[in-house]
Amino acid sequence: MASLRGIQQPELSKDLYKMIKTESHAISSYKNAGRDRVEVASQLANWGFNTGDPAVSEISDKLGIILSEIGEQEDLFSYNLEDARLVLKHIRNTEGSVQPARDHKAKIIDEIQKNKLRDPDGAKVTSLEQELVRAEARALVAEAQLTNMTRQKFKEAFDLHLAATIERAEKQVQLARHGRRLLSLIDDTPVVPGESRDKFDRTEESRQIMEDAEADLASWEPDLEPIPMASEGLIPKKIQTQANGNGVNGDSAKDEMEV
Amino acid sequence: MASLRGIQQPELSKDLYKMIKTESHAISSYKNAGRDRVEVASQLANWGFNTGDPAVSEISDKLGIILSEIGEQEDLFSYNLEDARLVLKHIRNTEGSVQPARDHKAKIIDEIQKNKLRDPDGAKVTSLEQELVRAEARALVAEAQLTNMTRQKFKEAFDLHLAATIERAEKQVQLARHGRRLLSLIDDTPVVPGESRDKFDRTEESRQIMEDAEADLASWEPDLEPIPMASEGLIPKKIQTQANGNGVNGDSAKDEMEV
Repeated sequence: MASLRGIQQPELSKDLYKMIKTESHAISSYKNAGRDRVEVASQLANWGFNTGDPAVSEISDKLGIILSEIGEQEDLFSYNLEDARLVLKHIRNTEGSVQPARDHKAKIIDEIQKNKLRDPDGAKVTSLEQELVRAEARALVAEAQLTNMTRQKFKEAFDLHLAATIERAEKQVQLARHGRRLLSLIDDTPVVPGESRDKFDRTEESRQIMEDAEADLASWEPDLEPIPMASEGLIPKKIQTQANGNGVNGDSAKDEMEV
Repeated sequence: MASLRGIQQPELSKDLYKMIKTESHAISSYKNAGRDRVEVASQLANWGFNTGDPAVSEISDKLGIILSEIGEQEDLFSYNLEDARLVLKHIRNTEGSVQPARDHKAKIIDEIQKNKLRDPDGAKVTSLEQELVRAEARALVAEAQLTNMTRQKFKEAFDLHLAATIERAEKQVQLARHGRRLLSLIDDTPVVPGESRDKFDRTEESRQIMEDAEADLASWEPDLEPIPMASEGLIPKKIQTQANGNGVNGDSAKDEMEV
């Protein structure tokens, strides 16, 4: 079914259609990875508890919390990528709607050629030439809409996409570093048979690490060089001014519509 | 089939068996995400080329390279996680091999109880008590092996795991920041119908960004607080000394084996 729908896409929006679909697969993978990561975290804590080793039990429990949070960030990442993906659909839809304007114009040019061969000065040719002026105006508006939408939404989508990549990464670096501090608290000096392990006496330190991790996560803020956007909305200023002022005459359809 | 094998795992290694399996799913998801990310990158470049817009074409091509590298890092991450996962199997296998020693000891204690009720001073009880001394020695060695293996490999596995998390994250932050610089080069000032876009004149800047990205990636080095490991190998020093020196006597099986 999905591949049939792909075939039905207008030629112009086919490339983006495919890309949006692949991105959807990637997002699902991150969602799955996040869910599995959270599950591994709870399995780790469970395993550690059942070892009966107080050091392993304590640290696996806390490391489980860290890993679970890393998994939550993976999940948040997938939602942020989805937001970026939805922005790309604006371009795809505009591409899809521009196609008929292009096709219509091409069809009229074609008909004019045919009719000129048969009856160069006929009323049919005159009528078609008038139709062509209208079609060209429509196509000009459509092409302007397309380039405006394309540039703005391309920037906007990957602004979101890359900001999400940075957010996941920076938070996970912090969490992973605290996780490494936890591991350092386990004394792995080998024991000989019959020798028992010393009591685990680093609970206080491990608690402090968890507090640090929580504080870091809570205080994380994006530190991004903003991507300058010229277009706040999609209506160019020139047209906004005209639309608010006097009307446009019928000859110049090109300034008539919001672009 | 997989679930049948799960059931066949000795009780002691069941928790870790499950966790190692879930981790394997997570790793597959990252591998898939990496592959899709690389595909999206080439679809993006292809789409950009077909828009016929020189700015979009140039930037989508270079951003595609950045996204593709982000995908490669996702793939490398999956291999590093796999290395960490394999380390956990050492613990799981040791857990599995300790189970028989525990079971054997429990069984003999049980048999001694039964035989004592029937014939407290019989030869069978004497023989079983001798067997119990041997079984206890074997169990002591097994338990020491288990705690040594568990602590060392737990630290080692998550050292690798968290280092991999940090490597992916730090590299992807760099790449994403350069990607954002690329986006800034696109002028998204809306045009009115019939107005043409200015020529794209920021190719030189975009080339510089790509060089910066490549240089950053090439010069990336891990900057990690090392996790101190007391155990280089798994043979405690005391035992190594004994093994190299005089032999051990039969009464004390507990120091006999490498632990």
